[in-house]
Amino acid sequence: MSIAVRSARTTWTDSLAAGHGVIEVGTEGIDRLDVTWASRIEDPQGRTSPEELCAAAHSSCFAMALGLKLAETGVTPSVLEVDATVTLEEVDGVPTISSSVIEAKGRIEGMNRTGFALVVSEAAELCPVSRLFAGADVTVNATLIEERAQM
Amino acid sequence: MSIAVRSARTTWTDSLAAGHGVIEVGTEGIDRLDVTWASRIEDPQGRTSPEELCAAAHSSCFAMALGLKLAETGVTPSVLEVDATVTLEEVDGVPTISSSVIEAKGRIEGMNRTGFALVVSEAAELCPVSRLFAGADVTVNATLIEERAQM
Repeated sequence: MSIAVRSARTTWTDSLAAGHGVIEVGTEGIDRLDVTWASRIEDPQGRTSPEELCAAAHSSCFAMALGLKLAETGVTPSVLEVDATVTLEEVDGVPTISSSVIEAKGRIEGMNRTGFALVVSEAAELCPVSRLFAGADVTVNATLIEERAQM
Repeated sequence: MSIAVRSARTTWTDSLAAGHGVIEVGTEGIDRLDVTWASRIEDPQGRTSPEELCAAAHSSCFAMALGLKLAETGVTPSVLEVDATVTLEEVDGVPTISSSVIEAKGRIEGMNRTGFALVVSEAAELCPVSRLFAGADVTVNATLIEERAQM
């Protein structure tokens, strides 16, 4: 049985180069998003792109997986900050999403760096989007922010 | 050399169950997006989720791939409408994004159903997000909208 089913629609008008698309989603959390080919591969000019949406998906999913794994060790983070960077490049002459790099930072009372690195590696195995992205290299880095430092 | 690099940050406060996350992206095309665990697996309540963002990425990327493949056959679509539906479910006891289903509809002058189905299958092989999602079953369906029908 499914846990969640979510959908989105892109309506594209005219050619790839000269046309544009509008993405609509089922919830009210996202407004209609504009996309164009030029904004995908050149300057975004206030428009999103598939790679940015993938980065947003990976970042948010990883933060949840990390929160779950921290809870299993009995700790609650003050703050988690998870960056995802997704790269589109030519591989064998074909545009390919080759990598997603996760930078996970946490401010967590009563946890040391070794412990945090271990939990981050467990989150990397759990994270559904990390496993979905089997077509790319997924790299995960962990940084524990000391309580006295500024995040 | 990369074609595009896009990033996003999720800042998560407090526990997974009781806390919440805010997704921020580099462009101005998306406002700050709220996510919570409850809104991911229960009622969205106006919030997005990793699955919805994956659906938005897949939908928009597929529309572009289809536009490119149509251009190679010398035709320009009046409109393409690409739905993506992403499912999260338990697989071997672990929450897993198991499938993304693409429904591609096109209104294209001078193209028949067989021709459209062929171009859609070529787009499925090209689409970078379809290949990124190697961890899930990606299914693609094609419907050609006749010029006289309402889309």
